[in-house]
Amino acid sequence: MKISFTPSNRVFTWPVRVYYEDTDAGGLVYHSRYLHFLERARTEWLRFLGFEQDLLAQQAGILFAVRHIEIDFLRPAHFNTQLLVYSQILELRRVSLTFNQHIELVSDNSRLLHAKVQIACIDTIKNKPTPIPEPLLRMICNEL
Amino acid sequence: MKISFTPSNRVFTWPVRVYYEDTDAGGLVYHSRYLHFLERARTEWLRFLGFEQDLLAQQAGILFAVRHIEIDFLRPAHFNTQLLVYSQILELRRVSLTFNQHIELVSDNSRLLHAKVQIACIDTIKNKPTPIPEPLLRMICNEL
Amino acid sequence: MKISFTPSNRVFTWPVRVYYEDTDAGGLVYHSRYLHFLERARTEWLRFLGFEQDLLAQQAGILFAVRHIEIDFLRPAHFNTQLLVYSQILELRRVSLTFNQHIELVSDNSRLLHAKVQIACIDTIKNKPTPIPEPLLRMICNEL
Amino acid sequence: MKISFTPSNRVFTWPVRVYYEDTDAGGLVYHSRYLHFLERARTEWLRFLGFEQDLLAQQAGILFAVRHIEIDFLRPAHFNTQLLVYSQILELRRVSLTFNQHIELVSDNSRLLHAKVQIACIDTIKNKPTPIPEPLLRMICNEL
Repeated sequence: MKISFTPSNRVFTWPVRVYYEDTDAGGLVYHSRYLHFLERARTEWLRFLGFEQDLLAQQAGILFAVRHIEIDFLRPAHFNTQLLVYSQILELRRVSLTFNQHIELVSDNSRLLHAKVQIACIDTIKNKPTPIPEPLLRMICNEL
Repeated sequence: MKISFTPSNRVFTWPVRVYYEDTDAGGLVYHSRYLHFLERARTEWLRFLGFEQDLLAQQAGILFAVRHIEIDFLRPAHFNTQLLVYSQILELRRVSLTFNQHIELVSDNSRLLHAKVQIACIDTIKNKPTPIPEPLLRMICNEL
Repeated sequence: MKISFTPSNRVFTWPVRVYYEDTDAGGLVYHSRYLHFLERARTEWLRFLGFEQDLLAQQAGILFAVRHIEIDFLRPAHFNTQLLVYSQILELRRVSLTFNQHIELVSDNSRLLHAKVQIACIDTIKNKPTPIPEPLLRMICNEL
Repeated sequence: MKISFTPSNRVFTWPVRVYYEDTDAGGLVYHSRYLHFLERARTEWLRFLGFEQDLLAQQAGILFAVRHIEIDFLRPAHFNTQLLVYSQILELRRVSLTFNQHIELVSDNSRLLHAKVQIACIDTIKNKPTPIPEPLLRMICNEL
Protein backbone atom coordinates (compact mmCIF):
# COMPACT_ATOMS: atom_id res chain seq x y z
CA MET A 1 0.00 0.00 0.00
CA LYS A 2 1.20 3.47 -0.86
CA ILE A 3 -0.94 6.56 -0.97
CA SER A 4 0.47 9.84 -2.20
CA PHE A 5 -1.26 13.17 -1.78
CA THR A 6 -1.61 16.33 -3.74
CA PRO A 7 -0.71 19.61 -2.02
CA SER A 8 -4.42 20.08 -1.25
CA ASN A 9 -4.38 17.98 1.90
CA ARG A 10 -4.46 19.43 5.36
CA VAL A 11 -1.61 21.34 6.89
CA PHE A 12 -1.00 21.38 10.63
CA THR A 13 0.85 24.36 12.11
CA TRP A 14 2.68 24.60 15.40
CA PRO A 15 4.44 27.65 16.89
CA VAL A 16 7.99 27.54 18.22
CA ARG A 17 9.86 30.28 20.05
CA VAL A 18 13.66 30.42 19.69
CA TYR A 19 15.33 30.41 23.13
CA TYR A 20 19.01 30.68 24.04
CA GLU A 21 19.16 26.89 24.28
CA ASP A 22 18.47 26.76 20.52
CA THR A 23 21.26 29.06 19.37
CA ASP A 24 25.00 28.64 18.87
CA ALA A 25 28.03 30.91 18.88
CA GLY A 26 27.28 31.91 15.29
CA GLY A 27 24.35 33.84 16.83
CA LEU A 28 21.76 31.75 15.00
CA VAL A 29 19.74 28.60 15.63
CA TYR A 30 22.02 25.54 15.76
CA HIS A 31 21.15 23.30 12.81
CA SER A 32 20.20 20.19 14.76
CA ARG A 33 17.66 22.15 16.81
CA TYR A 34 15.38 22.36 13.78
CA LEU A 35 14.98 18.58 13.99
CA HIS A 36 13.57 19.10 17.49
CA PHE A 37 11.15 21.76 16.21
CA LEU A 38 10.05 19.42 13.41
CA GLU A 39 9.50 16.57 15.85
CA ARG A 40 7.53 18.75 18.29
CA ALA A 41 5.21 19.66 15.40
CA ARG A 42 4.71 16.00 14.44
CA THR A 43 4.03 15.11 18.08
CA GLU A 44 1.45 17.88 18.39
CA TRP A 45 -0.14 16.80 15.10
CA LEU A 46 -0.56 13.29 16.55
CA ARG A 47 -1.99 14.79 19.73
CA PHE A 48 -4.37 16.92 17.62
CA LEU A 49 -5.58 13.68 15.99
CA GLY A 50 -6.20 12.28 19.47
CA PHE A 51 -3.13 10.08 19.84
CA GLU A 52 -0.66 10.36 22.70
CA GLN A 53 2.68 8.70 22.08
CA ASP A 54 3.12 7.48 25.64
CA LEU A 55 -0.21 5.62 25.37
CA LEU A 56 0.67 4.32 21.89
CA ALA A 57 3.83 2.84 23.42
CA GLN A 58 2.08 1.36 26.47
CA GLN A 59 -1.15 0.17 24.84
CA ALA A 60 -0.29 -0.46 21.20
CA GLY A 61 3.38 -1.32 21.73
CA ILE A 62 4.60 1.04 19.04
CA LEU A 63 6.79 4.08 18.68
CA PHE A 64 7.70 6.26 15.73
CA ALA A 65 11.32 6.51 14.61
CA VAL A 66 12.89 8.75 11.99
CA ARG A 67 14.22 6.63 9.09
CA HIS A 68 15.18 9.24 6.54
CA ILE A 69 15.49 12.97 6.58
CA GLU A 70 16.31 15.56 3.94
CA ILE A 71 16.59 19.19 4.91
CA ASP A 72 17.29 22.33 2.91
CA PHE A 73 18.45 25.10 5.19
CA LEU A 74 17.36 28.22 3.31
CA ARG A 75 17.74 31.07 5.82
CA PRO A 76 18.93 31.12 9.42
CA ALA A 77 16.74 32.02 12.41
CA HIS A 78 17.88 34.39 15.16
CA PHE A 79 17.54 34.22 18.91
CA ASN A 80 14.13 35.22 20.30
CA THR A 81 12.25 34.98 17.00
CA GLN A 82 8.87 33.30 16.68
CA LEU A 83 8.67 30.47 14.16
CA LEU A 84 5.82 28.45 12.72
CA VAL A 85 6.21 24.82 11.66
CA TYR A 86 3.99 23.54 8.84
CA SER A 87 3.45 19.77 8.62
CA GLN A 88 1.67 17.85 5.93
CA ILE A 89 1.58 14.19 5.02
CA LEU A 90 3.28 13.49 1.71
CA GLU A 91 3.01 9.72 1.63
CA LEU A 92 1.33 7.04 3.71
CA ARG A 93 2.36 3.39 3.82
CA ARG A 94 1.41 0.48 6.09
CA VAL A 95 4.58 0.81 8.17
CA SER A 96 5.70 4.37 7.51
CA LEU A 97 4.63 7.97 7.03
CA THR A 98 6.44 10.67 5.10
CA PHE A 99 5.95 14.31 6.05
CA ASN A 100 6.61 17.49 4.15
CA GLN A 101 7.49 20.09 6.74
CA HIS A 102 8.68 23.63 6.49
CA ILE A 103 9.46 26.34 8.99
CA GLU A 104 8.63 30.00 8.55
CA LEU A 105 9.67 33.13 10.39
CA VAL A 106 6.45 34.69 11.69
CA SER A 107 7.59 38.32 11.36
CA ASP A 108 7.86 38.24 7.55
CA ASN A 109 6.56 34.79 6.51
CA SER A 110 9.95 33.96 4.98
CA ARG A 111 10.71 30.27 4.67
CA LEU A 112 13.69 29.13 6.75
CA LEU A 113 13.88 25.48 5.83
CA HIS A 114 12.13 22.71 4.04
CA ALA A 115 12.25 19.10 5.23
CA LYS A 116 11.06 15.71 4.07
CA VAL A 117 10.92 13.27 6.96
CA GLN A 118 10.12 9.57 6.78
CA ILE A 119 8.89 8.05 10.03
CA ALA A 120 8.66 4.30 10.61
CA CYS A 121 6.21 2.65 12.96
CA ILE A 122 8.28 0.37 15.22
CA ASP A 123 7.20 -2.53 17.43
CA THR A 124 8.72 -1.65 20.82
CA ILE A 125 9.26 -5.32 21.79
CA LYS A 126 10.66 -6.72 18.54
CA ASN A 127 12.31 -3.40 17.68
CA LYS A 128 11.19 -3.88 14.06
CA PRO A 129 8.86 -2.07 11.65
CA THR A 130 5.20 -2.93 12.21
CA PRO A 131 1.94 -1.70 10.61
CA ILE A 132 0.53 1.60 11.86
CA PRO A 133 -2.41 0.71 14.17
CA GLU A 134 -5.77 0.74 12.33
CA PRO A 135 -7.45 3.52 14.36
CA LEU A 136 -4.52 5.83 13.75
CA LEU A 137 -4.32 4.87 10.06
CA ARG A 138 -8.03 5.61 9.63
CA MET A 139 -7.71 8.91 11.43
CA ILE A 140 -4.83 9.93 9.19
CA CYS A 141 -6.85 9.03 6.08
CA ASN A 142 -9.85 10.99 7.36
CA GLU A 143 -7.69 14.02 7.90
CA LEU A 144 -6.48 14.10 4.35
CA MET B 1 26.87 5.09 56.94
CA LYS B 2 28.50 8.28 55.83
CA ILE B 3 32.15 8.67 54.91
CA SER B 4 33.60 12.07 54.18
CA PHE B 5 36.99 12.61 52.66
CA THR B 6 39.75 15.12 52.94
CA PRO B 7 41.01 16.78 49.76
CA SER B 8 43.80 14.20 49.63
CA ASN B 9 41.74 11.57 47.88
CA ARG B 10 42.09 10.75 44.23
CA VAL B 11 41.06 13.07 41.48
CA PHE B 12 39.91 11.80 38.11
CA THR B 13 40.33 14.07 35.09
CA TRP B 14 38.54 13.92 31.76
CA PRO B 15 39.07 16.18 28.72
CA VAL B 16 36.22 17.91 26.92
CA ARG B 17 36.40 19.89 23.70
CA VAL B 18 33.88 22.73 23.19
CA TYR B 19 32.01 22.27 19.88
CA TYR B 20 29.41 24.51 18.23
CA GLU B 21 26.69 22.32 19.74
CA ASP B 22 27.84 23.51 23.20
CA THR B 23 27.64 27.24 22.58
CA ASP B 24 24.80 29.77 22.48
CA ALA B 25 24.18 33.14 20.80
CA GLY B 26 26.12 34.85 23.60
CA GLY B 27 29.20 33.26 21.96
CA LEU B 28 29.98 31.14 25.03
CA VAL B 29 29.15 27.67 26.33
CA TYR B 30 25.44 27.42 27.18
CA HIS B 31 25.12 26.90 30.93
CA SER B 32 23.29 23.57 30.87
CA ARG B 33 26.00 22.03 28.70
CA TYR B 34 28.36 22.00 31.67
CA LEU B 35 26.05 19.46 33.31
CA HIS B 36 26.70 17.21 30.32
CA PHE B 37 30.47 17.66 30.69
CA LEU B 38 30.23 16.87 34.40
CA GLU B 39 28.19 13.74 33.72
CA ARG B 40 30.58 12.52 30.99
CA ALA B 41 33.39 12.81 33.53
CA ARG B 42 31.47 10.82 36.16
CA THR B 43 30.62 8.19 33.53
CA GLU B 44 34.27 7.86 32.51
CA TRP B 45 35.31 7.67 36.18
CA LEU B 46 32.94 4.71 36.62
CA ARG B 47 34.33 3.13 33.46
CA PHE B 48 37.88 3.70 34.76
CA LEU B 49 36.87 1.79 37.91
CA GLY B 50 35.65 -1.04 35.68
CA PHE B 51 31.92 -0.39 35.75
CA GLU B 52 29.79 0.12 32.66
CA GLN B 53 26.42 1.75 33.31
CA ASP B 54 24.58 -0.30 30.68
CA LEU B 55 25.72 -3.49 32.45
CA LEU B 56 24.91 -2.03 35.88
CA ALA B 57 21.37 -1.44 34.61
CA GLN B 58 20.98 -4.87 33.00
CA GLN B 59 22.78 -6.99 35.59
CA ALA B 60 22.47 -5.10 38.88
CA GLY B 61 19.19 -3.34 38.05
CA ILE B 62 20.47 0.08 39.06
CA LEU B 63 21.06 3.48 37.54
CA PHE B 64 22.48 6.70 38.92
CA ALA B 65 20.31 9.81 39.05
CA VAL B 66 21.26 13.36 39.98
CA ARG B 67 19.45 14.39 43.19
CA HIS B 68 21.05 17.69 44.02
CA ILE B 69 23.36 20.02 42.19
CA GLU B 70 25.05 23.27 43.12
CA ILE B 71 27.12 25.10 40.55
CA ASP B 72 29.14 28.30 40.70
CA PHE B 73 29.77 29.62 37.22
CA LEU B 74 33.03 31.53 37.62
CA ARG B 75 34.20 32.27 34.09
CA PRO B 76 32.67 31.43 30.71
CA ALA B 77 34.23 29.09 28.13
CA HIS B 78 34.48 29.96 24.45
CA PHE B 79 33.86 27.89 21.35
CA ASN B 80 36.67 25.52 20.36
CA THR B 81 38.50 25.63 23.70
CA GLN B 82 39.82 22.53 25.41
CA LEU B 83 38.53 21.92 28.93
CA LEU B 84 39.46 19.50 31.68
CA VAL B 85 36.93 18.17 34.18
CA TYR B 86 38.20 17.24 37.65
CA SER B 87 36.07 14.81 39.69
CA GLN B 88 36.57 13.73 43.26
CA ILE B 89 34.32 11.99 45.76
CA LEU B 90 33.30 14.27 48.58
CA GLU B 91 30.95 11.98 50.44
CA LEU B 92 29.91 8.34 50.22
CA ARG B 93 26.67 6.90 51.60
CA ARG B 94 24.91 3.57 51.16
CA VAL B 95 22.50 4.94 48.59
CA SER B 96 24.25 8.03 47.29
CA LEU B 97 27.55 9.58 46.26
CA THR B 98 28.48 13.25 46.33
CA PHE B 99 31.11 14.56 43.93
CA ASN B 100 33.18 17.71 43.98
CA GLN B 101 33.81 18.61 40.37
CA HIS B 102 35.41 21.55 38.71
CA ILE B 103 36.20 22.49 35.15
CA GLU B 104 39.37 24.22 34.02
CA LEU B 105 40.38 25.86 30.78
CA VAL B 106 43.47 23.97 29.57
CA SER B 107 45.19 26.98 27.96
CA ASP B 108 45.68 28.88 31.23
CA ASN B 109 44.47 26.51 33.97
CA SER B 110 41.82 29.01 35.02
CA ARG B 111 38.84 27.57 36.84
CA LEU B 112 35.55 27.98 34.96
CA LEU B 113 33.13 26.44 37.39
CA HIS B 114 32.83 24.50 40.57
CA ALA B 115 30.07 21.96 41.19
CA LYS B 116 28.84 19.75 43.98
CA VAL B 117 26.71 16.92 42.63
CA GLN B 118 24.81 14.34 44.65
CA ILE B 119 24.01 11.14 42.78
CA ALA B 120 21.50 8.58 44.05
CA CYS B 121 21.64 4.88 43.27
CA ILE B 122 18.17 3.96 41.93
CA ASP B 123 16.52 0.55 41.58
CA THR B 124 15.39 0.52 37.94
CA ILE B 125 12.31 -1.63 38.68
CA LYS B 126 11.00 0.00 41.85
CA ASN B 127 12.27 3.42 40.75
CA LYS B 128 13.45 4.05 44.34
CA PRO B 129 16.82 4.59 46.05
CA THR B 130 18.70 1.36 46.69
CA PRO B 131 22.16 0.58 48.16
CA ILE B 132 25.15 0.93 45.83
CA PRO B 133 26.17 -2.64 44.83
CA GLU B 134 28.94 -4.06 47.07
CA PRO B 135 31.60 -4.55 44.37
CA LEU B 136 31.23 -0.96 43.26
CA LEU B 137 31.15 0.33 46.83
CA ARG B 138 34.37 -1.57 47.62
CA MET B 139 36.04 -0.29 44.49
CA ILE B 140 35.14 3.28 45.35
CA CYS B 141 36.58 2.84 48.85
CA ASN B 142 39.78 1.33 47.43
CA GLU B 143 40.21 4.27 45.13
CA LEU B 144 40.08 6.79 47.93
CA MET C 1 21.54 47.59 47.41
CA LYS C 2 19.85 44.33 48.24
CA ILE C 3 16.12 43.79 48.43
CA SER C 4 14.73 40.50 49.68
CA PHE C 5 11.12 39.51 49.36
CA THR C 6 8.61 37.58 51.39
CA PRO C 7 6.78 34.73 49.66
CA SER C 8 3.89 37.15 49.01
CA ASN C 9 5.37 38.56 45.82
CA ARG C 10 4.14 37.67 42.39
CA VAL C 11 4.63 34.30 40.81
CA PHE C 12 4.91 33.87 37.05
CA THR C 13 3.94 30.50 35.56
CA TRP C 14 4.91 29.05 32.22
CA PRO C 15 3.83 25.70 30.71
CA VAL C 16 6.29 23.19 29.27
CA ARG C 17 5.47 19.98 27.43
CA VAL C 18 7.98 17.10 27.68
CA TYR C 19 9.02 15.92 24.21
CA TYR C 20 11.29 13.03 23.20
CA GLU C 21 14.17 15.51 22.91
CA ASP C 22 13.91 16.07 26.68
CA THR C 23 14.16 12.44 27.78
CA ASP C 24 17.02 9.98 28.19
CA ALA C 25 17.41 6.20 28.11
CA GLY C 26 16.25 6.02 31.74
CA GLY C 27 12.82 6.89 30.29
CA LEU C 28 12.65 10.19 32.17
CA VAL C 29 13.57 13.81 31.56
CA TYR C 30 17.35 14.22 31.34
CA HIS C 31 18.48 16.35 34.29
CA SER C 32 20.07 19.20 32.33
CA ARG C 33 16.86 19.75 30.36
CA TYR C 34 15.22 21.23 33.45
CA LEU C 35 17.70 24.12 33.20
CA HIS C 36 16.27 24.82 29.75
CA PHE C 37 12.72 24.78 31.13
CA LEU C 38 13.76 27.14 33.93
CA GLU C 39 15.40 29.52 31.47
CA ARG C 40 12.41 29.50 29.11
CA ALA C 41 10.25 30.55 32.08
CA ARG C 42 12.63 33.39 33.02
CA THR C 43 12.70 34.53 29.37
CA GLU C 44 8.91 34.56 29.18
CA TRP C 45 8.71 36.42 32.50
CA LEU C 46 10.95 39.13 31.01
CA ARG C 47 8.80 39.20 27.88
CA PHE C 48 5.68 39.46 30.09
CA LEU C 49 7.28 42.53 31.72
CA GLY C 50 7.79 43.98 28.25
CA PHE C 51 11.49 43.24 27.76
CA GLU C 52 12.87 41.27 24.83
CA GLN C 53 16.37 39.93 25.34
CA ASP C 54 17.46 40.49 21.74
CA LEU C 55 16.57 44.19 22.11
CA LEU C 56 18.21 44.38 25.54
CA ALA C 57 21.40 43.10 23.90
CA GLN C 58 21.22 45.42 20.88
CA GLN C 59 19.94 48.59 22.59
CA ALA C 60 21.09 48.34 26.21
CA GLY C 61 24.20 46.23 25.54
CA ILE C 62 23.37 43.68 28.23
CA LEU C 63 22.64 40.00 28.56
CA PHE C 64 21.75 37.83 31.51
CA ALA C 65 24.05 34.98 32.53
CA VAL C 66 23.55 32.28 35.14
CA ARG C 67 26.08 32.73 37.97
CA HIS C 68 24.90 30.24 40.54
CA ILE C 69 22.37 27.45 40.53
CA GLU C 70 21.12 25.06 43.17
CA ILE C 71 18.62 22.38 42.23
CA ASP C 72 16.86 19.72 44.26
CA PHE C 73 15.55 17.02 41.98
CA LEU C 74 12.56 15.67 43.92
CA ARG C 75 10.67 13.49 41.46
CA PRO C 76 11.35 12.63 37.81
CA ALA C 77 9.10 13.65 34.90
CA HIS C 78 8.07 11.24 32.16
CA PHE C 79 7.86 11.64 28.40
CA ASN C 80 4.76 13.50 27.14
CA THR C 81 3.75 14.99 30.48
CA GLN C 82 2.69 18.61 30.88
CA LEU C 83 4.70 20.64 33.36
CA LEU C 84 4.29 24.09 34.86
CA VAL C 85 7.26 26.25 35.85
CA TYR C 86 6.75 28.72 38.72
CA SER C 87 9.15 31.68 38.90
CA GLN C 88 9.42 34.27 41.63
CA ILE C 89 12.08 36.81 42.50
CA LEU C 90 13.83 36.00 45.74
CA GLU C 91 16.41 38.74 45.77
CA LEU C 92 17.19 41.82 43.71
CA ARG C 93 20.58 43.56 43.53
CA ARG C 94 22.00 46.24 41.26
CA VAL C 95 23.84 43.71 39.09
CA SER C 96 22.01 40.47 39.76
CA LEU C 97 18.65 38.81 40.32
CA THR C 98 17.96 35.62 42.22
CA PHE C 99 14.93 33.53 41.35
CA ASN C 100 13.10 30.87 43.25
CA GLN C 101 11.73 28.47 40.67
CA HIS C 102 9.95 25.19 40.94
CA ILE C 103 8.43 22.81 38.44
CA GLU C 104 5.19 20.92 38.96
CA LEU C 105 3.56 18.05 37.14
CA VAL C 106 0.19 19.37 35.95
CA SER C 107 -1.68 16.06 36.29
CA ASP C 108 -1.33 15.86 40.09
CA ASN C 109 0.33 19.14 41.13
CA SER C 110 3.29 17.22 42.55
CA ARG C 111 6.52 19.17 42.79
CA LEU C 112 9.31 17.77 40.61
CA LEU C 113 12.13 20.10 41.47
CA HIS C 114 13.04 23.25 43.27
CA ALA C 115 15.73 25.64 42.04
CA LYS C 116 17.42 28.80 43.18
CA VAL C 117 19.04 30.60 40.27
CA GLN C 118 21.21 33.70 40.44
CA ILE C 119 21.39 35.68 37.20
CA ALA C 120 23.97 38.39 36.58
CA CYS C 121 23.47 41.35 34.27
CA ILE C 122 26.47 41.40 31.92
CA ASP C 123 27.82 44.18 29.71
CA THR C 124 28.09 42.51 26.29
CA ILE C 125 31.14 44.62 25.28
CA LYS C 126 33.20 44.51 28.47
CA ASN C 127 31.91 41.02 29.30
CA LYS C 128 31.61 42.11 32.96
CA PRO C 129 28.75 42.60 35.45
CA THR C 130 26.89 45.86 35.00
CA PRO C 131 23.81 47.40 36.69
CA ILE C 132 20.40 46.21 35.52
CA PRO C 133 18.99 49.00 33.29
CA GLU C 134 16.74 51.41 35.23
CA PRO C 135 13.51 50.79 33.28
CA LEU C 136 13.82 47.06 33.83
CA LEU C 137 14.76 47.52 37.49
CA ARG C 138 11.71 49.73 38.05
CA MET C 139 9.46 47.26 36.29
CA ILE C 140 10.74 44.43 38.44
CA CYS C 141 10.10 46.50 41.60
CA ASN C 142 6.58 47.36 40.43
CA GLU C 143 5.83 43.71 39.88
CA LEU C 144 6.71 42.72 43.40
CA MET D 1 34.47 25.11 -10.21
CA LYS D 2 33.27 21.74 -9.09
CA ILE D 3 35.50 18.81 -8.28
CA SER D 4 34.02 15.41 -7.56
CA PHE D 5 36.00 12.54 -6.12
CA THR D 6 36.02 8.81 -6.45
CA PRO D 7 35.75 6.70 -3.30
CA SER D 8 39.54 6.41 -3.28
CA ASN D 9 40.10 9.70 -1.51
CA ARG D 10 41.05 9.96 2.12
CA VAL D 11 38.73 9.08 4.94
CA PHE D 12 38.98 10.75 8.32
CA THR D 13 37.67 8.86 11.35
CA TRP D 14 36.65 10.23 14.73
CA PRO D 15 35.46 8.26 17.79
CA VAL D 16 32.29 9.16 19.69
CA ARG D 17 31.05 7.62 22.93
CA VAL D 18 27.27 7.54 23.53
CA TYR D 19 26.42 9.17 26.88
CA TYR D 20 23.05 9.53 28.63
CA GLU D 21 22.76 13.03 27.16
CA ASP D 22 22.59 11.43 23.70
CA THR D 23 19.73 9.02 24.37
CA ASP D 24 15.95 9.38 24.59
CA ALA D 25 13.12 7.53 26.31
CA GLY D 26 13.08 4.98 23.48
CA GLY D 27 16.41 3.79 25.02
CA LEU D 28 18.39 4.70 21.91
CA VAL D 29 20.34 7.68 20.58
CA TYR D 30 17.98 10.60 19.84
CA HIS D 31 18.03 11.22 16.08
CA SER D 32 19.23 14.83 16.16
CA ARG D 33 22.27 13.86 18.25
CA TYR D 34 23.82 12.19 15.21
CA LEU D 35 24.05 15.64 13.60
CA HIS D 36 26.24 16.65 16.55
CA PHE D 37 28.45 13.59 16.08
CA LEU D 38 28.76 14.35 12.36
CA GLU D 39 29.69 17.96 13.08
CA ARG D 40 32.28 17.01 15.70
CA ALA D 41 33.91 14.78 13.10
CA ARG D 42 33.97 17.58 10.51
CA THR D 43 35.42 19.96 13.11
CA GLU D 44 38.16 17.49 14.02
CA TRP D 45 38.90 16.90 10.34
CA LEU D 46 39.45 20.66 9.91
CA ARG D 47 41.64 20.67 13.02
CA PHE D 48 43.59 17.71 11.61
CA LEU D 49 44.21 19.79 8.48
CA GLY D 50 45.51 22.58 10.71
CA PHE D 51 42.50 24.88 10.74
CA GLU D 52 40.77 26.03 13.91
CA GLN D 53 37.28 27.41 13.39
CA ASP D 54 37.59 30.11 16.03
CA LEU D 55 40.65 31.47 14.19
CA LEU D 56 38.93 31.12 10.81
CA ALA D 57 36.13 33.30 12.19
CA GLN D 58 38.43 35.90 13.76
CA GLN D 59 41.13 36.04 11.09
CA ALA D 60 39.44 35.04 7.85
CA GLY D 61 35.95 36.22 8.77
CA ILE D 62 34.28 32.97 7.77
CA LEU D 63 32.24 30.21 9.33
CA PHE D 64 30.82 26.99 7.95
CA ALA D 65 27.06 26.47 7.92
CA VAL D 66 25.07 23.37 6.99
CA ARG D 67 23.01 24.04 3.84
CA HIS D 68 21.63 20.63 3.01
CA ILE D 69 21.56 17.32 4.80
CA GLU D 70 20.29 13.88 3.86
CA ILE D 71 20.44 11.09 6.40
CA ASP D 72 19.47 7.43 6.23
CA PHE D 73 19.03 6.04 9.71
CA LEU D 74 19.84 2.35 9.24
CA ARG D 75 20.20 0.95 12.76
CA PRO D 76 19.85 2.61 16.16
CA ALA D 77 22.71 3.00 18.66
CA HIS D 78 22.34 2.18 22.35
CA PHE D 79 23.53 4.01 25.44
CA ASN D 80 27.22 3.55 26.31
CA THR D 81 28.27 2.18 22.93
CA GLN D 82 31.40 3.35 21.14
CA LEU D 83 30.87 4.74 17.65
CA LEU D 84 33.20 5.75 14.85
CA VAL D 85 32.38 8.55 12.40
CA TYR D 86 33.83 8.29 8.88
CA SER D 87 34.10 11.52 6.89
CA GLN D 88 35.12 11.94 3.29
CA ILE D 89 34.80 14.80 0.85
CA LEU D 90 32.36 14.02 -1.92
CA GLU D 91 32.39 17.34 -3.73
CA LEU D 92 34.33 20.58 -3.54
CA ARG D 93 33.15 23.94 -4.86
CA ARG D 94 34.42 27.50 -4.40
CA VAL D 95 31.84 28.30 -1.74
CA SER D 96 30.79 24.90 -0.46
CA LEU D 97 31.94 21.41 0.48
CA THR D 98 29.89 18.23 0.45
CA PHE D 99 30.79 15.38 2.78
CA ASN D 100 29.89 11.73 2.71
CA GLN D 101 29.76 10.61 6.32
CA HIS D 102 28.74 7.41 7.96
CA ILE D 103 28.70 6.15 11.51
CA GLU D 104 29.61 2.63 12.57
CA LEU D 105 29.18 0.73 15.80
CA VAL D 106 32.70 -0.26 16.90
CA SER D 107 31.72 -3.58 18.50
CA ASP D 108 30.58 -5.20 15.24
CA ASN D 109 31.41 -2.66 12.50
CA SER D 110 27.74 -2.41 11.56
CA ARG D 111 26.72 0.78 9.82
CA LEU D 112 24.22 2.88 11.79
CA LEU D 113 23.64 5.74 9.41
CA HIS D 114 24.77 7.32 6.22
CA ALA D 115 24.74 11.07 5.65
CA LYS D 116 25.43 13.52 2.86
CA VAL D 117 26.10 16.98 4.23
CA GLN D 118 26.63 20.16 2.25
CA ILE D 119 28.48 22.92 4.07
CA ALA D 120 28.62 26.51 2.86
CA CYS D 121 31.43 28.92 3.60
CA ILE D 122 29.80 32.06 5.02
CA ASP D 123 31.17 35.59 5.39
CA THR D 124 30.52 36.39 9.06
CA ILE D 125 29.98 40.12 8.39
CA LYS D 126 27.81 40.00 5.26
CA ASN D 127 26.21 36.73 6.37
CA LYS D 128 26.45 35.49 2.77
CA PRO D 129 28.29 32.68 0.96
CA THR D 130 31.92 33.49 0.22
CA PRO D 131 34.81 31.51 -1.35
CA ILE D 132 36.64 29.06 0.89
CA PRO D 133 39.99 30.72 1.81
CA GLU D 134 42.83 29.69 -0.52
CA PRO D 135 45.09 28.03 2.10
CA LEU D 136 42.23 25.85 3.27
CA LEU D 137 41.14 25.08 -0.28
CA ARG D 138 44.71 24.03 -1.20
CA MET D 139 44.98 21.89 1.91
CA ILE D 140 41.72 20.14 1.09
CA CYS D 141 42.94 19.45 -2.46
CA ASN D 142 46.25 18.10 -1.15
CA GLU D 143 44.45 15.74 1.16
CA LEU D 144 42.45 14.13 -1.60
